[in-house]
Amino acid sequence: MDKHAVILLSGGLDSTTVLAIAKDQGVKLHAISFSYGQNHCHEIDQARMIAKTFSVESHTVIELGLAAFGESALTADIPVPKHGNVDEIGQDIPVTYVPARNTIFLSYALALAEVKRANAIYIGVNALDYSGYPDCRPEYIVAFEKMANYATKAGVTGSPIQIIAPLQHLTKAEIIAQGIELGVDYSMTTSCYDPNQQNHACGGCDACLLRLRGFAENGIKDPTRYQ
Amino acid sequence: MDKHAVILLSGGLDSTTVLAIAKDQGVKLHAISFSYGQNHCHEIDQARMIAKTFSVESHTVIELGLAAFGESALTADIPVPKHGNVDEIGQDIPVTYVPARNTIFLSYALALAEVKRANAIYIGVNALDYSGYPDCRPEYIVAFEKMANYATKAGVTGSPIQIIAPLQHLTKAEIIAQGIELGVDYSMTTSCYDPNQQNHACGGCDACLLRLRGFAENGIKDPTRYQ
Repeated sequence: MDKHAVILLSGGLDSTTVLAIAKDQGVKLHAISFSYGQNHCHEIDQARMIAKTFSVESHTVIELGLAAFGESALTADIPVPKHGNVDEIGQDIPVTYVPARNTIFLSYALALAEVKRANAIYIGVNALDYSGYPDCRPEYIVAFEKMANYATKAGVTGSPIQIIAPLQHLTKAEIIAQGIELGVDYSMTTSCYDPNQQNHACGGCDACLLRLRGFAENGIKDPTRYQ
Repeated sequence: MDKHAVILLSGGLDSTTVLAIAKDQGVKLHAISFSYGQNHCHEIDQARMIAKTFSVESHTVIELGLAAFGESALTADIPVPKHGNVDEIGQDIPVTYVPARNTIFLSYALALAEVKRANAIYIGVNALDYSGYPDCRPEYIVAFEKMANYATKAGVTGSPIQIIAPLQHLTKAEIIAQGIELGVDYSMTTSCYDPNQQNHACGGCDACLLRLRGFAENGIKDPTRYQ
């Protein structure tokens, strides 16, 4: 019987690599993306293109009302912090943190998993390069999986849902190395918190700095477009 | 310092009683309601009126894309099952189950709790009259709370969030008795899965049957409008 999995797909480097990993593992792919009033809404177009490239079984785009909560540089009108280089990125919880974001994303993924009879959810969280988001920590993923199996029919009927975070302990450089081995075309992806209107990455936000260093460590030029 | 709490408010009997309980406990009330393509969308108007009656600090209404998932009598075009009397209600997971509903609701409540600096979320789930929904079980609530404290700044900075389910072990009759003691006007509430266009309850769905029995056990006539 075919195994089905739900993959959280933002259209960034990490989630695109996760999609490639899930495909390589032979599961049927159901991508889910979120439009949540983020300033970088071009991500959705990117996600659609990537989903198509990977021949997913289905791609669900959820419109979230998350902007109503304000309070984050990713949803409200607060300047995105820029750092001169990657070592200046602090360990504090950053202003780009969106309240309960991964919990809301994973909850919708869980609903979709029930509908699609999928028993795995893949998410591209990353504990090493995590920039201080509490909902990227390994212990969070474990706790979500446990909760998910109390929450759903799957948990009750004995085919438990797994939350799979294959990038969890990888550096950005290791993620990129794995994606390249799997044939990912990273020119399809950007990771910028603050791209311009032509969707060119800023090169200065935390996400850009981490990405640039990851490519540099692989001795490869980042194929995405910078301003 | 004032304590703030988020209360999930559907506009039904249970959540209105929970609002009264939270108010009685002296916390500042932030109500959150969800519009999710349910057939009974009049619930939102009811919730607004109830929130106003209780003088809440804020009331957030979230539009969900949950209808996209279909598959439930509460969001799709499947007939709501009717039972002749309350003893016919089965212990199976019913078709009115919405995939991962409480998990999605609680995730938004968690985001709002972070924004409002609330460290409690009240939810009117009920394990005895629960009609077979896996995400109403006590062990689910415990698992969600644990996950929530890994997910958020609150959990990291040491003022943990509590998920409070004050109705968890009460019968419908006990819930109604408590609400009446706190002065709840239950004519403001309906609980029906299948009301008519004038928002009159059907009297035959599981929710109506459980409610009617609860009032009968208190020797009180249910003040809501039936067809």
